[in-house]
Amino acid sequence: MSDIGRYEQGLDRQPANHSALTPCDFMARAAAIYPARTAVVHGTLRRSYAETYARCRRLASALAGRGIGLGDTVSIMASNVPAMLEAHFGVPMAGAVLNALNIRLDAASVAWMLGHARSRVLIADAAFADVVEEALAALESRPHLVVVADDGEGEGSEGFADESYESLLATGSPDFDWPWPEDEWQAISLNYTSGTTGRPKGVVYHHRGAYLNALSNVLMNGMSRDTVYLWTLPMFHCNGWTHTWAVTAAAGTHVCLRRPEPAEVFRLIAEEHVTHMAGAPVVLGMLINAPESDKRRFDQVVEVATGGAAPPAPVIAAMEAMGFNVTHLYGLTEVYGPALVAAPQDDWPALPLDERAALMARQGVRHHAIRGAMVADPETLTPIPADGATVGEIVLRGNTVMKGYLDDAGATARAFRGGWFHSGDLAVMHPDGYIQITDRAKDIIISGGENISSIEVENALYSHEAVLEAAVVARPDPKWGETPCAFVTLKPDVPEITEEALIDHCRSQLAHFKAPRTVVFGDLPKTATGKIMKFDLRERARALPSGAAEREAARRGR
Amino acid sequence: MSDIGRYEQGLDRQPANHSALTPCDFMARAAAIYPARTAVVHGTLRRSYAETYARCRRLASALAGRGIGLGDTVSIMASNVPAMLEAHFGVPMAGAVLNALNIRLDAASVAWMLGHARSRVLIADAAFADVVEEALAALESRPHLVVVADDGEGEGSEGFADESYESLLATGSPDFDWPWPEDEWQAISLNYTSGTTGRPKGVVYHHRGAYLNALSNVLMNGMSRDTVYLWTLPMFHCNGWTHTWAVTAAAGTHVCLRRPEPAEVFRLIAEEHVTHMAGAPVVLGMLINAPESDKRRFDQVVEVATGGAAPPAPVIAAMEAMGFNVTHLYGLTEVYGPALVAAPQDDWPALPLDERAALMARQGVRHHAIRGAMVADPETLTPIPADGATVGEIVLRGNTVMKGYLDDAGATARAFRGGWFHSGDLAVMHPDGYIQITDRAKDIIISGGENISSIEVENALYSHEAVLEAAVVARPDPKWGETPCAFVTLKPDVPEITEEALIDHCRSQLAHFKAPRTVVFGDLPKTATGKIMKFDLRERARALPSGAAEREAARRGR
Repeated sequence: MSDIGRYEQGLDRQPANHSALTPCDFMARAAAIYPARTAVVHGTLRRSYAETYARCRRLASALAGRGIGLGDTVSIMASNVPAMLEAHFGVPMAGAVLNALNIRLDAASVAWMLGHARSRVLIADAAFADVVEEALAALESRPHLVVVADDGEGEGSEGFADESYESLLATGSPDFDWPWPEDEWQAISLNYTSGTTGRPKGVVYHHRGAYLNALSNVLMNGMSRDTVYLWTLPMFHCNGWTHTWAVTAAAGTHVCLRRPEPAEVFRLIAEEHVTHMAGAPVVLGMLINAPESDKRRFDQVVEVATGGAAPPAPVIAAMEAMGFNVTHLYGLTEVYGPALVAAPQDDWPALPLDERAALMARQGVRHHAIRGAMVADPETLTPIPADGATVGEIVLRGNTVMKGYLDDAGATARAFRGGWFHSGDLAVMHPDGYIQITDRAKDIIISGGENISSIEVENALYSHEAVLEAAVVARPDPKWGETPCAFVTLKPDVPEITEEALIDHCRSQLAHFKAPRTVVFGDLPKTATGKIMKFDLRERARALPSGAAEREAARRGR
Repeated sequence: MSDIGRYEQGLDRQPANHSALTPCDFMARAAAIYPARTAVVHGTLRRSYAETYARCRRLASALAGRGIGLGDTVSIMASNVPAMLEAHFGVPMAGAVLNALNIRLDAASVAWMLGHARSRVLIADAAFADVVEEALAALESRPHLVVVADDGEGEGSEGFADESYESLLATGSPDFDWPWPEDEWQAISLNYTSGTTGRPKGVVYHHRGAYLNALSNVLMNGMSRDTVYLWTLPMFHCNGWTHTWAVTAAAGTHVCLRRPEPAEVFRLIAEEHVTHMAGAPVVLGMLINAPESDKRRFDQVVEVATGGAAPPAPVIAAMEAMGFNVTHLYGLTEVYGPALVAAPQDDWPALPLDERAALMARQGVRHHAIRGAMVADPETLTPIPADGATVGEIVLRGNTVMKGYLDDAGATARAFRGGWFHSGDLAVMHPDGYIQITDRAKDIIISGGENISSIEVENALYSHEAVLEAAVVARPDPKWGETPCAFVTLKPDVPEITEEALIDHCRSQLAHFKAPRTVVFGDLPKTATGKIMKFDLRERARALPSGAAEREAARRGR
């Protein structure tokens, strides 16, 4: 026998030595080893791992009893309540695919997604009765079963449902012997992209990727059985960046939270001894700008993972002063949430805040489950030089890249061309191997033939103490082609500042051609996931009156 | 299209979203993200991750240059020196299989293993020149390449080798683009069992199992990038329980150690700020019983994982008093080292020492990568009741169970019968789900028709303050069939104790028929991996003179 053959012959995969990876087992293991430990806190409710696993098995069993199984989609529209967490285990334990819907969507979008997903079951939080009722009415074919979950905290009606979540669970067995996936490539969840351009796409995750991403997140965030995780991040967002599964893998405690209001967040941190949380920068801003009466002191350091936009130096400083440690992550729905992390280096803590913030603002380096992350020419896939200046596209590959887009082989093939997932984000690679986003291609402003990074201009704006939020887009200009146009929200209770003063501030920090020519004050339009809708701002910029005086009049008229 | 089909069609594995799991990537990732961090400490030598990865790539490249690749075996016989760690990455990066040999083996055993493994390359530590030379002389066919690794610390000659390790590395490229495994089921290492009965068997590990076991060990031992791991456990032992790969996954620091001598262990703990170590109970005993002049104080708590035998209460107390935290693990070569862990529960720290020690003495519960661990009837595989009393066999399954035994399909099939790996260890399952070994089948003593657990008798002996080590075996008896016979090593510097006094001590703690009838004082024979050789003791017990006076005479005559 050849030597290669010797290490294969008679050494096949078999039940004793091979098993599909599945995050469902994290719940089974936690319940077996730590049955009495608190798995879930929700208001005054506390449930142990034994109780929570029994409820997940009841859900799986009840769904199986209604004929739901392999390849069926179960949609859920719920806040960060226990039913939402349970669905992350109970639905795949039935062999089905979990489709968590963004709770901020309108009825038409919900109806479109339920139709596209061919959802056979919809579980909906009573709090969203109005949207759900309207969406169901708009559907050609209603799901076989509509279930209402009501934790007693939400408002809204239950009239749209066939059954309540608790009565559904009552029909299931707490000892249900759920079918282990035959193949770890089996779909586990379906997450729609926010669709800032065009129709949302249905991103399919599998058991293998969910398992590996969860473990990578345990490592990346330093989770352990002492972890108490506060759900400030929506669970509908990439399955809560797979923290639904990761915290359970660590046998930590999930602290549910319907709405991330500052007073309640601070109360839970202090009283439940929260160690970890995550969220968009808006959550950080909300905590920083909370009234002093809402803030609480606490003894532990709370690890906060944030993504979506880089946390500016003042945000990092303010968070640290309150007892948080901020880590910046980067990811997309297509890669199970975070794929890169601005992993802190040993010498960072000793650096001055501004230098440290600049390093932390970068998108970072791959986590364990991502095999490759590079900045490359999107056509040739040749890596750009790691010089911190040459721009290319962030491309990723590894086991935590999606299976693909549901019913969209064309989009899947385009996303995976050349053997890499194309993020669509433009970035540079620094000499130390950290990736930093410059701009999405469409966010580059070309003024007088010079490229201007909207992010660079935004950073200049953020450095002004009066600025709460800022977004910069291109405004058509007869002379320069385009000029930077800033939309700015000021902090409450700061002295009024003029457009000119803010432009001057930027000119003190940037090449003059990069400073905004126009500043518009007011609230920024956002998607349901909290992303600033730049396409909307671009339209507004195009429609702006040409003179400052007219703009000022238009602003006051709002 | 059916709903099942929708979640498969057009959603295949492809390079962008699927990649073989391999622990080799842990080194690549650590070097990319933390190039300057210290990967390896060895005496006064310190190497960064960038340097260590470059050396691993040189090794892989040099081996490939000599025609070594997929399915070839590379054996290594080395202490816990940098070359040994590098081989854990460099050899599989060449596509080859690493066979780490027990450094305490005799030449005949080494020759037998090199022959069975068909090793094409042997890398040997100069310190073992005598054994290696003799083994090579005994081989029908010498490996194509024999390499000597000499760190300057070992004694011995280099005459047996064709080349030195450093000159081999010099022929390789530090930028070698090593071939990623096509299939994660590919063999990564070959570890021979200690063969307490019959010929050693060649246990084959694969990349998937090595990756998953390493991550499970990171979680189980709480490793992070702050981990400084002292190599008191031999790396040849199940690839150092996969800690070779686990510490690297965490990007921690490996502190090499040729011999675990107490003064050096304490010095390294204090000076290198060691956070983690592992080893057989003999290592713990050695630290506890070290001369006070060898001991050092240190500020950190050092996590110590131990396996092979349960740490008794006095050992736990003594280790804790010195600043260690002990965790008890259970495993076998066939399951990549530890498979079970006596995972501490939240309420254990508050318990009295004896109660806590009794709980910690159990083999415990499965880690993340083990799918199933049960105590069952070995024939029917029906789980025994979790009553802490009914005895069955420990059986295991999951991704960290070996591929099988090399060139031994019969033994593989027997080990995996019924879809579970049969450990051969007899145990009970406690009501809280923790497994506790009673005895290996052959360690049960049957006296007057009653079963006596040798472990129970050993625990009674260990509870006497003068006892350092104890082993109990069956001694043939004309009246009772068998009686318990104890072999005992006393602590140095304790007052002499008689056979009768020790037997009386046991009778005060055990049913009288369980107390040893015979006690023999002296050193215990051990295998190269430090296991007490009970088969040897059984033979000695059989050959004992019948009367106590003759035994005493025999003892003094030694």
